[in-house]
Amino acid sequence: MTQAGRAYFGRRYLISASHRLHSAALTDEENQAAFGRCNNPHGHGHNYVVEVRVAGPVDPETGMVVNLADLDAVVRARVLDRFDQGNLNCDEAFRNLVPTTENLCRVVFDILKPNLPAGELECVRVEETENNSFEYYGG
Amino acid sequence: MTQAGRAYFGRRYLISASHRLHSAALTDEENQAAFGRCNNPHGHGHNYVVEVRVAGPVDPETGMVVNLADLDAVVRARVLDRFDQGNLNCDEAFRNLVPTTENLCRVVFDILKPNLPAGELECVRVEETENNSFEYYGG
Amino acid sequence: MTQAGRAYFGRRYLISASHRLHSAALTDEENQAAFGRCNNPHGHGHNYVVEVRVAGPVDPETGMVVNLADLDAVVRARVLDRFDQGNLNCDEAFRNLVPTTENLCRVVFDILKPNLPAGELECVRVEETENNSFEYYGG
Amino acid sequence: MTQAGRAYFGRRYLISASHRLHSAALTDEENQAAFGRCNNPHGHGHNYVVEVRVAGPVDPETGMVVNLADLDAVVRARVLDRFDQGNLNCDEAFRNLVPTTENLCRVVFDILKPNLPAGELECVRVEETENNSFEYYGG
Amino acid sequence: MTQAGRAYFGRRYLISASHRLHSAALTDEENQAAFGRCNNPHGHGHNYVVEVRVAGPVDPETGMVVNLADLDAVVRARVLDRFDQGNLNCDEAFRNLVPTTENLCRVVFDILKPNLPAGELECVRVEETENNSFEYYGG
Amino acid sequence: MTQAGRAYFGRRYLISASHRLHSAALTDEENQAAFGRCNNPHGHGHNYVVEVRVAGPVDPETGMVVNLADLDAVVRARVLDRFDQGNLNCDEAFRNLVPTTENLCRVVFDILKPNLPAGELECVRVEETENNSFEYYGG
Repeated sequence: MTQAGRAYFGRRYLISASHRLHSAALTDEENQAAFGRCNNPHGHGHNYVVEVRVAGPVDPETGMVVNLADLDAVVRARVLDRFDQGNLNCDEAFRNLVPTTENLCRVVFDILKPNLPAGELECVRVEETENNSFEYYGG
Repeated sequence: MTQAGRAYFGRRYLISASHRLHSAALTDEENQAAFGRCNNPHGHGHNYVVEVRVAGPVDPETGMVVNLADLDAVVRARVLDRFDQGNLNCDEAFRNLVPTTENLCRVVFDILKPNLPAGELECVRVEETENNSFEYYGG
Repeated sequence: MTQAGRAYFGRRYLISASHRLHSAALTDEENQAAFGRCNNPHGHGHNYVVEVRVAGPVDPETGMVVNLADLDAVVRARVLDRFDQGNLNCDEAFRNLVPTTENLCRVVFDILKPNLPAGELECVRVEETENNSFEYYGG
Repeated sequence: MTQAGRAYFGRRYLISASHRLHSAALTDEENQAAFGRCNNPHGHGHNYVVEVRVAGPVDPETGMVVNLADLDAVVRARVLDRFDQGNLNCDEAFRNLVPTTENLCRVVFDILKPNLPAGELECVRVEETENNSFEYYGG
Repeated sequence: MTQAGRAYFGRRYLISASHRLHSAALTDEENQAAFGRCNNPHGHGHNYVVEVRVAGPVDPETGMVVNLADLDAVVRARVLDRFDQGNLNCDEAFRNLVPTTENLCRVVFDILKPNLPAGELECVRVEETENNSFEYYGG
Repeated sequence: MTQAGRAYFGRRYLISASHRLHSAALTDEENQAAFGRCNNPHGHGHNYVVEVRVAGPVDPETGMVVNLADLDAVVRARVLDRFDQGNLNCDEAFRNLVPTTENLCRVVFDILKPNLPAGELECVRVEETENNSFEYYGG
């Protein structure tokens, strides 16, 4: 059995949330030009599919990179309970940050990075729609 | 070539919108019990996949049930421009109607039914997430 | 708002189970001819995607055909806890029934039919792989 | 076990083919108006996903509506070997028929209807792209 | 907020096109051996799903790697208007290049590389069918 | 045409197999804690989607990284005929290895690595369900 290889586990979660794209650093006209209809004051919403990708060795006793139940518990407590069924603009992470999907991706990465039960967080991928996706890899 | 058969054309569109589930006919406690987190005051969002299903004969000259460009124009003008990138609760259709996906499905059906460029509207199907879907067939 | 229409709610669940296709009514040769590799004594497995389709009026107060949490509780208690992560051949429902996906579909239909929290069970659909699906409508 | 119910088996196949939409009954201008870019003389192509839906009783001995290997053999010999990796316009079925997806759906239905190894052909569904689908039910 | 990380935006587009696999460098027998049915003179077709993957910093004011509308305009003008609904063999890019999906991937990469409105083109991915995909990363 | 770039071809296959998660290195209680319901003695099953990703130059004559038919023949002979429709626990590769999806991924990688007809094996990806995936890259 190859031992030197790299193994990854990816797990998908769902966040249904609303947001309004608006940047305090831009004028109303610039906001409208940059975000179009996504700048409308009442917001709109998405089903964000969030994939958490964990890198690490395969444990020889359990055959796992990370225990699925342990990972789920962390993601539920720190990410889903916080953002699912909510409005991103109301969360403190987005007080000074436009709640684009790129920034949601970075926020989730920074939340999970120090808290994984095993392995190392390689990246967070967020699918905003079936045609648009974002990935963020830590520096 | 069989002539007596029934033919259907289905076309999928995307609506990204936010909503808050809250019924004026219920108390706060009943709203909370019925809708759970979906009742939170800031709303949340979805990518609704809306499938419009048109029944009709296949035109012998064009080989089509309905011309795709004509159908798209109607759906864009009457449904997408109205609901996409918006908040369902702000639309007059939902002034006295809880903006559940079931009701969105019925509202879209009633809007499109008298306005198709060809064929007859058989049903509207809305996928709220990849696991939840709704269909509405007129009476 | 149209009132006479028919509305349906579809909800997908996942069952990961193993099975071996073998009919006590057939000889070994007939079993091999009918089921091929699926007749191998050690069994094999699938991720069955089970869609439960509920028909019924949209409740005017809640805007729902059936409350999602109530439906989930019934399906979890009666179907998922019984079949998920197990071997279909070991369940009493398949003591005298070949555990094909057609029969799994019928067994789930018969279990859920009298137990829905609201609405009426229209059909159960099981996707055995992304290319094979089965649907069962009660008589 | 319910015996009076209706059971269906659906099986997906892939046809990669090219076509040019052009009707001999229309002028060049009418062809251009009806089909747009799909009327270009060099044709274009699709991966058509063809779903064959078979209705019938579940055989009590085998637990099947139709044996998968038997169905595959018929569809391969009569449909895939004829249309896959080809140009629809070159097939005799489309000599006097515009090769729209609606008409492909009807042609496949008429070919398979009298040739199923078991059960009855309920409908043929063709997905032209992930957003456009067609279904044909015999008369 | 982590600043040193790498962010990517992926956007999917659809090209419906026909092609015939035939290499001028091979004999008829070698073409037949290499390409099988894909070498038939009338060509066949696909729905190519083209994913453009852009790397770059997240703009602190807009929260974006690249503005979606700007990227769409470039891809539409330079790639979709050129290849969608057409025959790859007729395009000058494939005058001396077999129009395999690998080569389509490279051609699209080379077209877009110097023309992105923001960020840097990391790779182009083309899904020929749901089971076959290709990716090309510049040197 | 860029020549220095890297090209990849990915091809998906399906393995329907059963397994039971149980480690000889753990006590019964530890097995139960690590694997939960997946430790039940009768096993359960999955449709594993196995993606083989091949890296290599695009052959200037054929326009391919690897000939699809050649790759299919190798994967069929060495992987599908061995694991599809079977029980992973019965295969010698898993005699001393817990048959988790991580380990299936590594086993398939090690089998295919020295046997590709062209190009180089970059990684093997296995999707256990639509929400869980694993990738293995050789060292």
